[in-house]
Amino acid sequence: MKMLINVPETVVADGLRGMAAAHPELTVDVENRVVVRRDAPVAGKVALVSGGGSGHEPLHAGFVGPGMLSAACPGEVFTSPVPDQMLRAAAAVDSGAGVLFVVKNYTGDVLNFDMAAELAEDEGIQVAKVLVNDDVAVTDSLYTAGRRGTGATLFVEKIAGAAAEEGQPLERVESIARQVNENSRSFGVALSACTTPAKGSPTFDLPPGELELGIGIHGEPGRERRPMMTSREIADFAVHAILEDLHPSDPVLLLVNGMGATPLLELYGFCAEVHRVLAERNVAVARTLVGNYVTSLDMAGASVTLCRIDEELLRLWDAPVNTPGLRWGM
Amino acid sequence: MKMLINVPETVVADGLRGMAAAHPELTVDVENRVVVRRDAPVAGKVALVSGGGSGHEPLHAGFVGPGMLSAACPGEVFTSPVPDQMLRAAAAVDSGAGVLFVVKNYTGDVLNFDMAAELAEDEGIQVAKVLVNDDVAVTDSLYTAGRRGTGATLFVEKIAGAAAEEGQPLERVESIARQVNENSRSFGVALSACTTPAKGSPTFDLPPGELELGIGIHGEPGRERRPMMTSREIADFAVHAILEDLHPSDPVLLLVNGMGATPLLELYGFCAEVHRVLAERNVAVARTLVGNYVTSLDMAGASVTLCRIDEELLRLWDAPVNTPGLRWGM
Repeated sequence: MKMLINVPETVVADGLRGMAAAHPELTVDVENRVVVRRDAPVAGKVALVSGGGSGHEPLHAGFVGPGMLSAACPGEVFTSPVPDQMLRAAAAVDSGAGVLFVVKNYTGDVLNFDMAAELAEDEGIQVAKVLVNDDVAVTDSLYTAGRRGTGATLFVEKIAGAAAEEGQPLERVESIARQVNENSRSFGVALSACTTPAKGSPTFDLPPGELELGIGIHGEPGRERRPMMTSREIADFAVHAILEDLHPSDPVLLLVNGMGATPLLELYGFCAEVHRVLAERNVAVARTLVGNYVTSLDMAGASVTLCRIDEELLRLWDAPVNTPGLRWGM
Repeated sequence: MKMLINVPETVVADGLRGMAAAHPELTVDVENRVVVRRDAPVAGKVALVSGGGSGHEPLHAGFVGPGMLSAACPGEVFTSPVPDQMLRAAAAVDSGAGVLFVVKNYTGDVLNFDMAAELAEDEGIQVAKVLVNDDVAVTDSLYTAGRRGTGATLFVEKIAGAAAEEGQPLERVESIARQVNENSRSFGVALSACTTPAKGSPTFDLPPGELELGIGIHGEPGRERRPMMTSREIADFAVHAILEDLHPSDPVLLLVNGMGATPLLELYGFCAEVHRVLAERNVAVARTLVGNYVTSLDMAGASVTLCRIDEELLRLWDAPVNTPGLRWGM
């Protein structure tokens, strides 16, 4: 497998050097692997810190900036960051108003963020945590007890980030983050496996002519394999799987997310099919985001995330944001 | 080759239906394949129209909106749109202040935009044209006499679009577009071929362990094939190829563009190497954009585009833009 890299050992550090070069509005500590918005700590503002294994870019470092995350801690590819990174990030961004950790539900991330929270509290930093577990595909998985955290992470970070930006207190920011997670569900499919730099060959074996329904963002097994399906059939399957679990009375936010290697032209075609099946099910879509946001290196495929929203959550979604990966209104 | 599509015949129409669903701020005529900003024609404003084969998304339809294109005409995959689309687009957006056609230098596009310009002038629409031909890799190519138009298209559309948005007259918008093209150079590499839906198999054969230096955005042959190189070596080769042809005294805009399937993590690492070699050559970088903007379906690889700018061009680059693919400041 050919990659645009130097050596596997420096992939994460090289990526951070590139972020530092491209984004002077961020403070990038390459050695300690912490990315912080340059104006942090912002007086009186609750800070949001997230992180996880690398390979899902722009998640999370690409979501650091006004209106979203205060800091991110990238781990090695598909490997949790360590508590020291999270502690360093929390200390860099805490203004005294407290820090919310946004944690995707993977065993390593959960343990390490728990430990970091304890360490931070020992240093007098007030910490709250929200666990993201939106993936309806499987109950337990290779790296997870319970449901995996996937596309809803973007919704949690954007909406809770907006609440923090306008000065809401920690308790309220945490409760909004929790509400967004509880109202969100995702389902993903893989048309190809992904290849980590360290391994250099596909992480799993997906025969020609088959797809994996319910894939995780590290290539963890999904619900089942089937002969290749059309975009229309995949949209039906994914949306039905979500709506078995989420009964939207309110309108929804929709994320049609590429896993990395699927062309945008195909993602938009898939988006049309997702909109069609939502219309058939009488689900109103308030906003749609299409693109590669929560990726799995070079995996081909897509995921669908729905988040049930009210007027307040929609207002926070529409609020200005200025990060490398998501930007509007400022 | 597995794709997230229904059938090859409807890929472009399906993509446009998805754009219509996701972007209510655009008027998408799926049948006639024209994407227009909803508030067009804008009184007194010069309009920008571009287009080309599909498969390069977000280029061009993803760059329609305030501060950039007024309309785009997507052709079939890797196939020029027809003059009737361009005429329809021009008629939809012309406020009487005239229309600038932004044309990538491919034989089909050039011929069809020429014909559309004649037809538009017959209908009383004042038309100017700018040809984008920034690719230094080869002189002539499979679909091109002269240099191919690639990454600089984004710079031309953004900067001339900003000039049009602030009310500059057609002659001035055209001259700015021409200046941006003349000051821009690109060089691309492919690590894998791409696969068109109609063909269903890779458009060319690139053996494991080799890369193609100087690739075109349809997989046209480049300068040479070599055994796989590191990110550092590729950055050296690409930037040196550009700087043999462009001697920057001013600072530059830098686009580190993914061809579609290369993970963002790798693109950022490559960006670090491009910055390194530019620093070694004493070229100051004013702004850097990293991401998948001028793509070739599922091709793995990247391209580098430099544009020599002055204060006025930088001001126009920084001006607000609000399109699906590029958005800031509004």
